[in-house]
Amino acid sequence: MADTKQRAGVEELLAREEAFLAVERRNPASPYFAGGLAPRAGRRRFMLGSMAALGAATAFAPNRSRGAEGASPPQHEAPPDASKVQGYPLEDASYGSRSQFEKEMRARFKTATPQSSWTMTPLESGMGIITPSGLHFERSHAGTAVIDPAKHSLYVHGMVKGAKKFSMRDVKRFPSVSRIHFIECSGNGLTEWTKPTMKTVQMTHGLTSTSEWTGVPLSTILAECGGVRGGAKWLLVEGGDGAAMTRSIPLAKAMKDCMLAYGQNGEAIRPEQGYPLRLLVPGYEGNTHIKWVRRIEVADAPFMTREETSKYTDIRPDGKAVQFSFEMEAKSVITSPSGEMMLEGPGFYEITGLAWSGRGAVKRVDVSTDGGRTWRQAALQGPVLPICHARFRMPWQWDGREAILQSRCVDETGYVQPTLGQLVALRGTNGPLGSIYHLNAIQSWLVADDGKVSNVHHY
Amino acid sequence: MADTKQRAGVEELLAREEAFLAVERRNPASPYFAGGLAPRAGRRRFMLGSMAALGAATAFAPNRSRGAEGASPPQHEAPPDASKVQGYPLEDASYGSRSQFEKEMRARFKTATPQSSWTMTPLESGMGIITPSGLHFERSHAGTAVIDPAKHSLYVHGMVKGAKKFSMRDVKRFPSVSRIHFIECSGNGLTEWTKPTMKTVQMTHGLTSTSEWTGVPLSTILAECGGVRGGAKWLLVEGGDGAAMTRSIPLAKAMKDCMLAYGQNGEAIRPEQGYPLRLLVPGYEGNTHIKWVRRIEVADAPFMTREETSKYTDIRPDGKAVQFSFEMEAKSVITSPSGEMMLEGPGFYEITGLAWSGRGAVKRVDVSTDGGRTWRQAALQGPVLPICHARFRMPWQWDGREAILQSRCVDETGYVQPTLGQLVALRGTNGPLGSIYHLNAIQSWLVADDGKVSNVHHY
Repeated sequence: MADTKQRAGVEELLAREEAFLAVERRNPASPYFAGGLAPRAGRRRFMLGSMAALGAATAFAPNRSRGAEGASPPQHEAPPDASKVQGYPLEDASYGSRSQFEKEMRARFKTATPQSSWTMTPLESGMGIITPSGLHFERSHAGTAVIDPAKHSLYVHGMVKGAKKFSMRDVKRFPSVSRIHFIECSGNGLTEWTKPTMKTVQMTHGLTSTSEWTGVPLSTILAECGGVRGGAKWLLVEGGDGAAMTRSIPLAKAMKDCMLAYGQNGEAIRPEQGYPLRLLVPGYEGNTHIKWVRRIEVADAPFMTREETSKYTDIRPDGKAVQFSFEMEAKSVITSPSGEMMLEGPGFYEITGLAWSGRGAVKRVDVSTDGGRTWRQAALQGPVLPICHARFRMPWQWDGREAILQSRCVDETGYVQPTLGQLVALRGTNGPLGSIYHLNAIQSWLVADDGKVSNVHHY
Repeated sequence: MADTKQRAGVEELLAREEAFLAVERRNPASPYFAGGLAPRAGRRRFMLGSMAALGAATAFAPNRSRGAEGASPPQHEAPPDASKVQGYPLEDASYGSRSQFEKEMRARFKTATPQSSWTMTPLESGMGIITPSGLHFERSHAGTAVIDPAKHSLYVHGMVKGAKKFSMRDVKRFPSVSRIHFIECSGNGLTEWTKPTMKTVQMTHGLTSTSEWTGVPLSTILAECGGVRGGAKWLLVEGGDGAAMTRSIPLAKAMKDCMLAYGQNGEAIRPEQGYPLRLLVPGYEGNTHIKWVRRIEVADAPFMTREETSKYTDIRPDGKAVQFSFEMEAKSVITSPSGEMMLEGPGFYEITGLAWSGRGAVKRVDVSTDGGRTWRQAALQGPVLPICHARFRMPWQWDGREAILQSRCVDETGYVQPTLGQLVALRGTNGPLGSIYHLNAIQSWLVADDGKVSNVHHY
């Protein structure tokens, strides 16, 4: 009965609204005039405009045939006063785009081939801790693989009690977890060892991004194979891309917190992040987070693949290579003000940036505006999550004189982000096969007296 | 010196790689054959492929002229084996799209006009707590306003010590905060009061989404106007859209946690979310989160706008309207399995869903698989944040018999999500102007013995 009454009411309202609108649309003085003038602000006149909503329940059929997903941003002319016209209509089926006025892009690090390459996240325009999926950094060894998830499978074999093959559908049936984690390429900052080379924070630090990842714990998948056999200590994880990118992962890490991720920021993982399935190895260097995962082999020793012998080792001053430098040490960078920005003049600025550690949560970030002579503790924006970018902020009154801005991260293990001098003393800078990777030194930005910000080395 | 050595090394490596590739590209047996075969998986042969990266530092100029932002997903043919070919190249400047294989869309609630309308988030495909910005629900009264941020301003006047106008540039200069919050339209579920009407969770619950919002506390803006005058108790907040959408907000709430948000999930707020500036009123009904904000007026009383007199009040069974039902009460819904899904047969399923409360953090979610006779506590995925979607999960072994799935949220105030029966007993269902808003009852999904899931009322 209540239902009948409600339906009748809806129908009546709809009819009233249609009659009302039929008149109003022909009246040039009306806010509903077909020319499109909108009601004045603050009006209290009774109008049925949004009543239509009430009737919608009965006339509701989502149309998924229209609406391009991820379409180019709609290009609309901005009216002189948007409150005087109707905005553009809501689509029957849509996947939204950012505003036509927003232009930030990933920028490619110009390697010899665009397949083995990087693109970097524009950290200077970032806000909070989440990286928009469209701006997540990329590192691929053979371009972005195109994989139909309906045909993709994951094969697990070696020292497991029973080898198994899983379809994507199988994978998604398991209990899942979601975690917000950063990933950082171990090559982040590789140009900055001996002198300041890049101009912007996108180029000095843009090989790190943060997403909410969703997937199945790797331990679940191994359990589904009956568990590992006695003596098993390592896993080989292999991608299904043209490079068949392959790394060895310690079994202990796999059991602790590795995840086979199929979700990123609330939807399917993006193609350049390893669609439909990537490994997440929280806190380890980015190249271990194998994308487009198709095979896992369990063994009693590391596999010594190309990516962990000729690549991704750290050669020390004595010529010996440190193998398996997995964990990304604590690091931070001021993203604003940062290289190439121009301060408008003396006055208030909020210094903000990101801090992170592969070993856990950020405990503290200190900021210096005098090149490291004095430090003040910055505010950390909550939530501060383990193995996740943390946003720090500090108010700053610029007096118009030359200043050197630095940030220093301390993580929950007590590790203090080093100066470049300390890092070089420890690791050397012995050529292109040497200290290319794992540059986590304090970054310095010089603010000149004209407000121009630039990348400098100062330690 | 080290620098010179490093540069020389880079040049040498590049030259070696070019020579190597020049030969390999003509060799059909080579993984670098121009036809495009990739190296075999697990190979240990030394290859210079990714060495190019080392040389990149010297040849690096981001090109922002190419690369459409938010472009239609690239349509690529999926090769039979993606590991046998190169993937598509990384672009010099890019803003990524989701995979061509992903099709989830917002769906429009078919109102009389597509300008005063809603689109709903496909919660059934959601993962974790973040809603992809492209799938954030929309509710607009006059379509999506098109506003050039360079020309937009915010005017604050009324009972402040000094009226002020702020450009977007001014707004962004203030200290900012980032917080992960849900927004929910008070009309979410309005079709479901008297009988189950919609078929999917997108349609029954899709008017809520979660983002990481970044902006300036409203209290900062008021302080910048010299603070409010004695007796000030309310604010009018007005949008610059065609509806000049306008609501009154209590000053105490404004001072507590309201934010003028310009960021969403790490980039500029999306056009349909109020670009370039929206009000965030954490926990209040969605229509108070004024989009495209252009004016704030401080006063000693609420403004009694159309949106809070003829609209957005709750008429009770005795005919009186409850005005200012701002806070969204605790609510939850199982998103999988949910309406229109088909279980493949008896066996293991993970029941998962979202819970939230406008009054704080979710304390507990209970799940029933027998229509509310027995309840088990679900696991909450951390971080569980205040006024934010929380993801819950519970393992379930389906025996193949008819089952009714329900979830019940308890928030940190101790409030328990009611059954529909309890809610109707309290509020009635007196027609379309009555209990349209604020339906937060327990949702029931019927799993038939053939595995088909459908929307039912069961209480």
